Amino acid sequence: MNFTDALNSAWRERNSLLCVGLDPDPERFPAHLKGKADAIFHFCAAIVDATADLVCCFKPQIAYFAARRAEDQLEALIDHIHRQHPATPVILDAKRGDIGSTAEQYAIEAFERFQADAVTINPYMGHDSVAPYLAYSDKGVIILCRTSNPGGSDLQFLDVGGERLYERVARLVSTVWDTNGQCALVVGATFPGEIARVRTMTGDMPLLVPGIGAQGGDIEATVRAGRTASGCGLIINSSRAILYAGGGEEYAEAARRVAESTRDAINCYRHSG
Amino acid sequence: MNFTDALNSAWRERNSLLCVGLDPDPERFPAHLKGKADAIFHFCAAIVDATADLVCCFKPQIAYFAARRAEDQLEALIDHIHRQHPATPVILDAKRGDIGSTAEQYAIEAFERFQADAVTINPYMGHDSVAPYLAYSDKGVIILCRTSNPGGSDLQFLDVGGERLYERVARLVSTVWDTNGQCALVVGATFPGEIARVRTMTGDMPLLVPGIGAQGGDIEATVRAGRTASGCGLIINSSRAILYAGGGEEYAEAARRVAESTRDAINCYRHSG
Repeated sequence: MNFTDALNSAWRERNSLLCVGLDPDPERFPAHLKGKADAIFHFCAAIVDATADLVCCFKPQIAYFAARRAEDQLEALIDHIHRQHPATPVILDAKRGDIGSTAEQYAIEAFERFQADAVTINPYMGHDSVAPYLAYSDKGVIILCRTSNPGGSDLQFLDVGGERLYERVARLVSTVWDTNGQCALVVGATFPGEIARVRTMTGDMPLLVPGIGAQGGDIEATVRAGRTASGCGLIINSSRAILYAGGGEEYAEAARRVAESTRDAINCYRHSG
Repeated sequence: MNFTDALNSAWRERNSLLCVGLDPDPERFPAHLKGKADAIFHFCAAIVDATADLVCCFKPQIAYFAARRAEDQLEALIDHIHRQHPATPVILDAKRGDIGSTAEQYAIEAFERFQADAVTINPYMGHDSVAPYLAYSDKGVIILCRTSNPGGSDLQFLDVGGERLYERVARLVSTVWDTNGQCALVVGATFPGEIARVRTMTGDMPLLVPGIGAQGGDIEATVRAGRTASGCGLIINSSRAILYAGGGEEYAEAARRVAESTRDAINCYRHSG
């Protein structure tokens, strides 16, 4: 099944827009895992198994694995998700961006080596830097549009002739680059008005929204701004608030409780008002 | 020694602005290396040993290693360069770009795991996405500015209020982000007028120029546009034209011949006219 269909099925069948981000930081692991072989895999796999029925997808962040020479554990983790939770797509958060011949290598890394269903990509180098990922027609290509970090406005908010740079990216992706219905956009949760703007420009294109905690206020504004007519269209990511909800041996159960309450908080606003 | 000082020494002592890009594609390896264990390492190490006295730095492209699960060979290669050619800085071409907490992980990957002297970075997410690399004050941070691929103009050439987006990046980096003299910019070889523009805006900041072959025309225009008053300031990269100059067992000698002629072609224009 291709990424878009799998995502649509997961939204519907799980009744969830929640994505759990897998950003494993061994310094924050419970004491019983510290020093254990393949601790990163075991920490993440327990989170996955405790939350899979509550989410529309998982999003491992490759930097946390690469910093610790743990690419093998990332391979094992994605394989675990595919085997144990086969209806749950995996987004590899890598934010790659390079010329075509190099992008072909990164696409092999994401889709063939790691077997991700989708990958995040940086648009700064333009269309031919994205095309090698799009050539995998069953995969999702999730392009940075508007990020909610403090420096996100340094370039993305510049006026490029009547619209902001992030609006240009949204327009380019939805009207030119995405000829196969396989693209999505990253739009941070900090600016609901901008989520609404991107939603208006992109029809029903999925939006990956990072930067949300378990706080209902941000969730309400984000969901109202970004939902489609059918109450879907959003991949709302939470990482640290879920991964590190509990500090002890019961961390996976604690993660499940926060994931469940976050899913429910999101669902309050998908169809109301 | 920090990256900037090491680069300045290498420019002067080797009398070379040439950077050899290490983009190892096993399909293009000589027959005697195919199927050999650690072929990627051996291929690259032979190129390094044959050309080190002709270059100012080496630039391995991480995608080629990651696509083949060969991070261990990349570690070994950079270690080999540091041990055998200690005055030759290594730029890890990774073009990373993410929020601060994730950028910290990527900085660990580049500088602590791989022991690179500098890394390439994407500016789309703004200053705080670059700051974690700058925190390694002895390392080089080389930021994408103007790329020469076909889609490079999709965003970089947009008018952002009297200047192009790539000019804004050059201005931000040189006047705001680079408080420690450790930044450089990537400016493609296709547009010498734009190299000249960036040179005017950035004083003596090093410019990494990819996209050049062994053709004298491009080299002349690039060097005249980008050189500093002292005839330095450029890291002129050539990858495939050098790596794959010969197809047989003598590939390293063939690479050396092309590297030497490219270095010499560059040197023709560093101080003339």
